Amino acid sequence: MADLTPPDGIVERLAELAVVFGANVQRGQIVGITGELGGHEPLVRAIAEAAYRRGARFVDVNWFDPRVKRARIQHAAEDTLDFVPPWYGNRVLGLGREKSALVAITGPTEPGLYDDLDPARAGKDRLPAVKESLTVVNERTVNWTIVPFVTEAWARLVRPDVPIEEAYATLWDEIIHVCRLDEDDPAAVWSKRMDANERAATRLTELAFDSLRFHGPTIELELGLLPTSRWHHTRFSTADGLVHHPNVPSEEVFTSPDPQRAEGWVQSTKPLVLIDGSVVRGLRVRFEGGRAVEIEADEGGETLAGRVDADEGGRRLGEVALVDREGRIGPLGTIFWDTLLDENAASHIALGAGFPWAVSEEDVPRVNESQVHVDFMIGSDEVDVTGRTKDGADVPVLRGGAWQI
Amino acid sequence: MADLTPPDGIVERLAELAVVFGANVQRGQIVGITGELGGHEPLVRAIAEAAYRRGARFVDVNWFDPRVKRARIQHAAEDTLDFVPPWYGNRVLGLGREKSALVAITGPTEPGLYDDLDPARAGKDRLPAVKESLTVVNERTVNWTIVPFVTEAWARLVRPDVPIEEAYATLWDEIIHVCRLDEDDPAAVWSKRMDANERAATRLTELAFDSLRFHGPTIELELGLLPTSRWHHTRFSTADGLVHHPNVPSEEVFTSPDPQRAEGWVQSTKPLVLIDGSVVRGLRVRFEGGRAVEIEADEGGETLAGRVDADEGGRRLGEVALVDREGRIGPLGTIFWDTLLDENAASHIALGAGFPWAVSEEDVPRVNESQVHVDFMIGSDEVDVTGRTKDGADVPVLRGGAWQI
Repeated sequence: MADLTPPDGIVERLAELAVVFGANVQRGQIVGITGELGGHEPLVRAIAEAAYRRGARFVDVNWFDPRVKRARIQHAAEDTLDFVPPWYGNRVLGLGREKSALVAITGPTEPGLYDDLDPARAGKDRLPAVKESLTVVNERTVNWTIVPFVTEAWARLVRPDVPIEEAYATLWDEIIHVCRLDEDDPAAVWSKRMDANERAATRLTELAFDSLRFHGPTIELELGLLPTSRWHHTRFSTADGLVHHPNVPSEEVFTSPDPQRAEGWVQSTKPLVLIDGSVVRGLRVRFEGGRAVEIEADEGGETLAGRVDADEGGRRLGEVALVDREGRIGPLGTIFWDTLLDENAASHIALGAGFPWAVSEEDVPRVNESQVHVDFMIGSDEVDVTGRTKDGADVPVLRGGAWQI
Repeated sequence: MADLTPPDGIVERLAELAVVFGANVQRGQIVGITGELGGHEPLVRAIAEAAYRRGARFVDVNWFDPRVKRARIQHAAEDTLDFVPPWYGNRVLGLGREKSALVAITGPTEPGLYDDLDPARAGKDRLPAVKESLTVVNERTVNWTIVPFVTEAWARLVRPDVPIEEAYATLWDEIIHVCRLDEDDPAAVWSKRMDANERAATRLTELAFDSLRFHGPTIELELGLLPTSRWHHTRFSTADGLVHHPNVPSEEVFTSPDPQRAEGWVQSTKPLVLIDGSVVRGLRVRFEGGRAVEIEADEGGETLAGRVDADEGGRRLGEVALVDREGRIGPLGTIFWDTLLDENAASHIALGAGFPWAVSEEDVPRVNESQVHVDFMIGSDEVDVTGRTKDGADVPVLRGGAWQI
């Protein structure tokens, strides 16, 4: 077995970025960390240490073990597979009540671990996701972030055809680059990028488009926006005004669209990895009256359809996000097989839950509701994005990946 | 690094013994597992698989990471070190409400990890122990067990002076032997041993001693018993009558004594490893009026004193246990540095919490109450145990390690 260790000091720098810039942990806070056994251990521990150094009251690690989940999917009775003990949700609600900081770690540890199992059974167990997480995020009681961590399995997944030492080193180089850890002061560089995204988001909100049109070789799609849809970037603040950065890295500006208005078709521009690690390739979706009436794929289409059919809102849109070509992820041309990275390479839309906080109170009931939220990539430099104002005027938004606004 | 792997098939056999004989997991039950990162992973996963195969509804693993605890003791503010989020206790109470099965794994993963830290700070963080565990155990709502698992660090701790491959193989041989996994049908052999312990416990209860006297080169101690002190062995049943075996291995018969009556002195016959992995060697305790008025040791005495001074009951006795020489642990002569193993090698007493279920209702208020429970070994083949009946007659109980009753 190759002895693969992260570049010197990088785990500590990434932990510091997650705690200080990402979650912005405050003295006296409880810090919830979610990480996977079999790969995330070094970063979980470094984040715990950084959080305690910064004055955290308690670090509560939610360790998730994909192997235990596999045993369940293999052997448990079918009618028990969607059971979650009440204390799982109560923990998350408790973290919200205590106004905690949350750090989640992404990066596949055992991709494909459930591939040989019955997808219908696998789809019933949604852990480590619990529905209460959407509640605390929407109530904005927690300052949270998601950061990536390189595992051997992830490096192999991204570059199966090169020696593992090279794949591992290259993936670290890329993660360091996209996380701005190659800068002397990563947090300062991030703040500048966030300022630029804030300008784009502010301008989009001012333009108050009635709809957005996507045009290109992979897409002909028109999406309605809600009258009060506000564009956000990933500098969030809690209900109490505590600033945090929910995704590191992040390059997107986004809002919740009108779930009743989407017409046309789209072909995903990148593969999509579902929460259980299964893959959807060559996805094609056709919308009518806001609903994804056709979901097909070269691979994994049925699994995705099964997932979004969990409830009424699963086939309607909860998010539309625009990514310009100034970001650091798109230019790499790498498929990371991880939504945090891949969604920030390109413009994307999400089936399922929208963001009630992205609209004014009168539009909240119109925002899409669902227990699922599945992002998939629809953007590329060949996709033009055009806004249509309430007066019917067309305004170029993205051309060749560059902002026009 | 040596490639140390458990003997073929033994992890699965141990898991099966824990699930079927130890906890006696029932179809439809939730199964809580507690294990440590950095060593217990293979057994946790094998237990999860065995539990799901047996029809468990859900396996809820409570992963404990000693490294995260170390970061806390090092860096957290002093006045936060005893904080535990309410959802930790609520999980345990929830497991009780759901009448779950519980399996805990023992065997040090990182002995001495906190040795260089301030013991006063280390003593304030009692995790992974939570006080609610005593509640569900005392309410007998859960069928539970504790089983050992060999780690590299444990093997090194037990035999620091031999090559690690040999230490690891020898410790596995011993664990296999004491767990009866070298028998064709370990559960059947265990049932026989439990029958023998049941006979001893029944006879001791019938004799209804007023007190027990321990006499030998390391001890001169007289302990009062309560009028209704019932002797137990480790075949338990829940309030609903579900039989389970809380310790595998187990060789002891035990009861809760009168916390107001203990006179004399004792020298521990084995070192004692506290819950935080710190060690107490050469322990000497003197009792007056039931209270441990002097606690001294060659090493770790102060840490132990700090621990039992957590509350009023911490210096009084909650348990007295007798172990005969027919067990498989004592004859090995090995110090395992792990209470589950070491306490079953010799007769022992425990400072702290007693067992309300070991006496009749009228004596329940007299059983010792505390949030701590620290066992230490007082028996050897040179220690005679004699019972004194309510009429003042002396009855030999153990001589040379053999039952006389």
